[in-house]
Amino acid sequence: MTDLRPLRDFVRAATEAVALPRPEADLLADLRGRLATLVSRDDWLPDELAQPHPQFYRQYLLHCDPLERFSVVSFVWGPGQQTPVHDHTVWGLIGMLRGQEESQPYAPDAGGAMVPQGAPTRLVPGQVEAVSPTLGDVHLVRNAVPGQVSISIHVYGGNIGAVQRWVYAADGTRKPFISGYSNTMLPNLWDRSKEGA
Amino acid sequence: MTDLRPLRDFVRAATEAVALPRPEADLLADLRGRLATLVSRDDWLPDELAQPHPQFYRQYLLHCDPLERFSVVSFVWGPGQQTPVHDHTVWGLIGMLRGQEESQPYAPDAGGAMVPQGAPTRLVPGQVEAVSPTLGDVHLVRNAVPGQVSISIHVYGGNIGAVQRWVYAADGTRKPFISGYSNTMLPNLWDRSKEGA
Ligand SMILES: [Fe+3]
Ligand SMILES: [Fe+3]
Ligand SMILES: [Mg+2]
Repeated sequence: MTDLRPLRDFVRAATEAVALPRPEADLLADLRGRLATLVSRDDWLPDELAQPHPQFYRQYLLHCDPLERFSVVSFVWGPGQQTPVHDHTVWGLIGMLRGQEESQPYAPDAGGAMVPQGAPTRLVPGQVEAVSPTLGDVHLVRNAVPGQVSISIHVYGGNIGAVQRWVYAADGTRKPFISGYSNTMLPNLWDRSKEGA
Repeated sequence: MTDLRPLRDFVRAATEAVALPRPEADLLADLRGRLATLVSRDDWLPDELAQPHPQFYRQYLLHCDPLERFSVVSFVWGPGQQTPVHDHTVWGLIGMLRGQEESQPYAPDAGGAMVPQGAPTRLVPGQVEAVSPTLGDVHLVRNAVPGQVSISIHVYGGNIGAVQRWVYAADGTRKPFISGYSNTMLPNLWDRSKEGA
C-alpha cells in the first residue's frame, strides 16, 4: 500500500481553497502551487490507478469534491496514445507525475477549421500547466515518451467525467462527449490507522 | 453495477447539512430523515462493500467528508458476530439496511463496572437510531438474525475509522482503539456517464 497522505493533504487543501470567495486566477495560482507539491514526488499513486490500457488512455478518478466543485484525475498514457482535439469548459490544471506529455493548443482559423495554434508544450515531471475557457481551452494531448507509460495528475473545476464538452474534427465541426471515468473504485484516503506517526 | 445515486444524493445533502451553523440536535434530526430515505431501499450498496468476513464484522468506508466532518460506513455482520462494548466520542446514526441488529446500551454502575443499561434496541430495515456522547455513547451491537448476514449504514460526526476511542471490559477498565476500515478502495459515486436519464 502506498502512503496516500500527499493526495489526502492536497484534497483537503483544495476543498478549503474552492470554498473561498475570490477570482478564478487567485484560486488557480493557489492550486497550481499545491499541485506542484503533489507531483514533486512520485511515491503515492496506487498501482491500480496507474495501469495503462493497451488501446486507450485511462482517466482514473482519484477524488471528486462532494459538491462537484473540483475533481482530481490520473491520466495514464500507454505508448503512442493521444486524445482527440477536445475542450474542457471548466478550468484545468495538469501536473506531470511520470514520463512526459505534449499538449498542442488548437484554435479556429478564419475559415472555421480547427488548426494547431502556436508551439506544443512539453511537460516534464514536477511541471504544472493550466487550461481554461479564458486561457485557451482546446488542445490535443499525447504521450511524448516513445515506448513508455506517462502519467499526469489533472485537477478540474467540476466533476470532469460528468461534464458535457466537445471533440473537434479538422473541419471545425464538433461532437458532444462526456468522458466518464475508467475506474469504479476510488482510493480510500481516510484510513489513518495504517499510517506511521 | 448498482445505481449509486441514492448514496451520492445522501453524501451531497449531508455535506451541505454539516456546513450549516446550528445545534447538533438539529443536524441530527435532518440527517436522520435523510438516512431513513437512504435505507428505505436496498438496491444501491455495491456487492464488494456488502461482503461478510468469516470471523470479524466489517466496516467498509463508503464516503468520508474531505474535511473529516462526517463519514458513512457499511457495517456488515456475519452470523453470530458482535462488537465489544465500545464508545464513539462523536455522534452517530445507524440505519438498518438488511437483516436486523441489536444494540445494548451500557453504563457504569456505582462500583465503576460497565453494565447493561436498560433493554436492548432491535433495528429492522428502514429504522434509524442515534448514539452520541450526549445521548448515551457506550453500547454492544450484535447481528440479531441467526445464520444470516445483516448490514447497517452508519453516519458519524467525524472520520470514525481514525477516531481514537475506547473498548470497555466488564470491570470498567478501558483500552484505546482506532478501528480503521476494512476496505482500501471506495465506490466511485461520481461517474454519471453510466447512468440513465
Ligand atoms: Fe485536456
Ligand atoms: Fe457503535
Ligand atoms: Mg441489489
